[in-house]
Amino acid sequence: MEHNYLYLNIAEAIASQIRSGVLREGDKLPSVRMLCAEHEISMNTAKRVYLELETQALIESKPQSGYFVSNLYYDEIPLPQVSSPILLANNKEPKEIIRKVYSNMGNRDITLFSYSTLYDDFLPLAKMKKEIVAASRAMVHGGVEYDSVQGNINLRRMIAQRSITWGGSLKEDDIITTNGSMSAISLCMLALGKPGDTIAIESPCYPGIFQLAIDLGFKVIELPTDPVTGIKIDALREAVDHIDMCLLISNYNTPLGSCMPDENKKEIVELLDKHDIPLIEDDVYGDMYFGTQRPKCCKAFDKTGNVLCCSSVSKTLAPGYRVGWVSPGKYKNKIMHQKLVHLISTPPLMQEAVASFMKSGNYDKHLRKLRKDIYSNYQKYLNTIITSFPLGTKVNRPQGGLSLWIEFDPRVDAMDLYDLAIAEKISIAPGRMFTVQEQFQNSIRLCIGLPWSAEVEYKLKRVGELSKQLLHNE
Amino acid sequence: MEHNYLYLNIAEAIASQIRSGVLREGDKLPSVRMLCAEHEISMNTAKRVYLELETQALIESKPQSGYFVSNLYYDEIPLPQVSSPILLANNKEPKEIIRKVYSNMGNRDITLFSYSTLYDDFLPLAKMKKEIVAASRAMVHGGVEYDSVQGNINLRRMIAQRSITWGGSLKEDDIITTNGSMSAISLCMLALGKPGDTIAIESPCYPGIFQLAIDLGFKVIELPTDPVTGIKIDALREAVDHIDMCLLISNYNTPLGSCMPDENKKEIVELLDKHDIPLIEDDVYGDMYFGTQRPKCCKAFDKTGNVLCCSSVSKTLAPGYRVGWVSPGKYKNKIMHQKLVHLISTPPLMQEAVASFMKSGNYDKHLRKLRKDIYSNYQKYLNTIITSFPLGTKVNRPQGGLSLWIEFDPRVDAMDLYDLAIAEKISIAPGRMFTVQEQFQNSIRLCIGLPWSAEVEYKLKRVGELSKQLLHNE
Repeated sequence: MEHNYLYLNIAEAIASQIRSGVLREGDKLPSVRMLCAEHEISMNTAKRVYLELETQALIESKPQSGYFVSNLYYDEIPLPQVSSPILLANNKEPKEIIRKVYSNMGNRDITLFSYSTLYDDFLPLAKMKKEIVAASRAMVHGGVEYDSVQGNINLRRMIAQRSITWGGSLKEDDIITTNGSMSAISLCMLALGKPGDTIAIESPCYPGIFQLAIDLGFKVIELPTDPVTGIKIDALREAVDHIDMCLLISNYNTPLGSCMPDENKKEIVELLDKHDIPLIEDDVYGDMYFGTQRPKCCKAFDKTGNVLCCSSVSKTLAPGYRVGWVSPGKYKNKIMHQKLVHLISTPPLMQEAVASFMKSGNYDKHLRKLRKDIYSNYQKYLNTIITSFPLGTKVNRPQGGLSLWIEFDPRVDAMDLYDLAIAEKISIAPGRMFTVQEQFQNSIRLCIGLPWSAEVEYKLKRVGELSKQLLHNE
Repeated sequence: MEHNYLYLNIAEAIASQIRSGVLREGDKLPSVRMLCAEHEISMNTAKRVYLELETQALIESKPQSGYFVSNLYYDEIPLPQVSSPILLANNKEPKEIIRKVYSNMGNRDITLFSYSTLYDDFLPLAKMKKEIVAASRAMVHGGVEYDSVQGNINLRRMIAQRSITWGGSLKEDDIITTNGSMSAISLCMLALGKPGDTIAIESPCYPGIFQLAIDLGFKVIELPTDPVTGIKIDALREAVDHIDMCLLISNYNTPLGSCMPDENKKEIVELLDKHDIPLIEDDVYGDMYFGTQRPKCCKAFDKTGNVLCCSSVSKTLAPGYRVGWVSPGKYKNKIMHQKLVHLISTPPLMQEAVASFMKSGNYDKHLRKLRKDIYSNYQKYLNTIITSFPLGTKVNRPQGGLSLWIEFDPRVDAMDLYDLAIAEKISIAPGRMFTVQEQFQNSIRLCIGLPWSAEVEYKLKRVGELSKQLLHNE
């Protein structure tokens, strides 16, 4: 428990009982007076506990009766299927769909459920402006002169310090800064692979990853992936003799929302190390957990330096700053060389601003609030989907991150749904975007980065209604 | 003539007569009184004219006698040879030398003649800090949210406006922003080439370029290059059937300092277009001319969109901002795709700050002063080299940019000179760094980005003395 306030601690304890099923739908909660007695707290504090849980949509008050666990429906809704891609290299890139969907990036006339990014109040815009001003004053040359190739020392120090939160023990020298996480992944692929090499990825997978791989001439093998526990280890074990590298979004991946259990991480790290296959790990969502504990990284189980762990602040703090990094293990010299030849260095000013925000404790404070807000957002999105989408719709239940993965009845074509939705200025991401094979035609990714509002609620319900329309037209 | 002040116009006219040889060493200049009469100006203005020329080290005053053209020696010193590389693909990368030289990047305990960058007072540090603060306030989301893939619209607008200075007529939509010029070149090479392709470059060449090419699996052909007029067209014509792309630093290239005449640019653009070979042009030094006229770009002669013109503000304004761009002509979609998959986008804040600095007219003001200062710096470096380096040393006479290319007697080994110099905390760049063949063993690049000072003068003289020492030991 890391909340600063007593009422939040108590609220979290109750929330965790609801999440784990100890408290169930319709259960009556203690009265405010009883809560005071139980926890030896004031009436005011007790009221704040329930207010907090109401905000999270976990409980609701009934006049004259008290507080009850909300009707969450969660357990009644099936999870999407474990994916079953063809286990052969496949390069059917969904270029046209990606082009279509990405053409609306940044267009705020449209309700953007399609991009895995935070908007508006979720980002601490004013605070970051102050950090930039302070950084430009604090730095000897105001960030105008070249940075070292390895990157800003203050940022590397903070990343190293924070590695303890995911089970790591990095030193500042173990880190190279980059222009965001995709830039880190790009440097890793450039350093480790050559055309004709084969890379194993999750299925479905973030399209930026397979686009990059295909562009570099790699063959791409998608492996079966579970919406709860991530990539299937057996499938990876069978593929291991045919691949040259592996890339995993280990925690709350997009679009599937899966998070690999510790034992899976450990097993995969050992398996790949044994076969001398480098593992590129993307951990951009690891800090966005809904529960009380941050998940570990694969890197935490890396004894030989075979894991290259990439991350950034693009999902949690400032996408536009392009501040990311990689802990490249034994591949450090190769990555340094790639950074030098492709980028020379990265802008020191944004790195200094992020480092200072971390050092002051404000980043952790921001993350605490963000996690709570995103979780509450998630519940509102999920409840609306459950109540407004057609019966039989399957939804993932991520424990963090920004991605809902929705599997419709096979008769709903996600591209048709995309066309209907975009005509109403709603953007969703069709499932075919996330694979180089013919699959996920009836799935979509729906991101929860837009803060809840009447407008968002209305548009989300419209997606449900449009999918019903497609189902009935059939 | 673009100076705002009358005295500068007159000083420039006299300077140009000295540079062109109309006025020669020891020639007496008109008295201050005569200058007043000739130009119908005040005594004060006339005095400022001569003060200006003295600052540029072009003239000197002798007590009781008046003003005389300085002892410049320029015409007595021979130019370095036109290079004659082997005309076959060659990949003898000088990795160890590059690693050695670059390991001191940013180390200010050392006098850094080795890097082609500006230091200290040459960069408008305070003004750029203000621009950053203003930009973070002016932008709707303070630069915290993702930029569009193509890049900041205000910057693209300014680059388009400024294209008129080099003979272009770009529109904002013709430009894609990047993380500096090397990032632009990297995106071009990734978009246009595949392993096994052959790229033609100048010889000697900036090492970042051939390192990148070799890393991407390209074959590298160096072509003979003239220290005044750049790459030899005949050699390019003979190579044209064996190459897949060509890269040229057209204006004041590094390390050679050559600047291609307009007619050469036109001919090469037409030649490459005819053979459907894309030309990547690097124009980072084009704004740093010593004379009165900015040289054109190859892009100015491009009628078919076959030239990809890359540039940045890294050499003139703010290396650390990593603000660059490319005008990719007909290859725009390919470059946009590469930017998306490798970088997603670039930080909007630095771009906005640079755009605002350009829009206010402050960039042009800065460039005017910078050109004058660099030219004056160049003359001081050159005079010292001419007076302190061994007889028979050959030096280029660049008309802009930051690079002196010095060719010693063949008995002087530049690596030995490097070792002697670095022991005295002086860093120079050995010629072998700039080629993938065995050549330039007795050449060095010496950059003029450190403002002149007693310390710089002393260290520069030491390089001369150390080279004499090597010559006499022989």
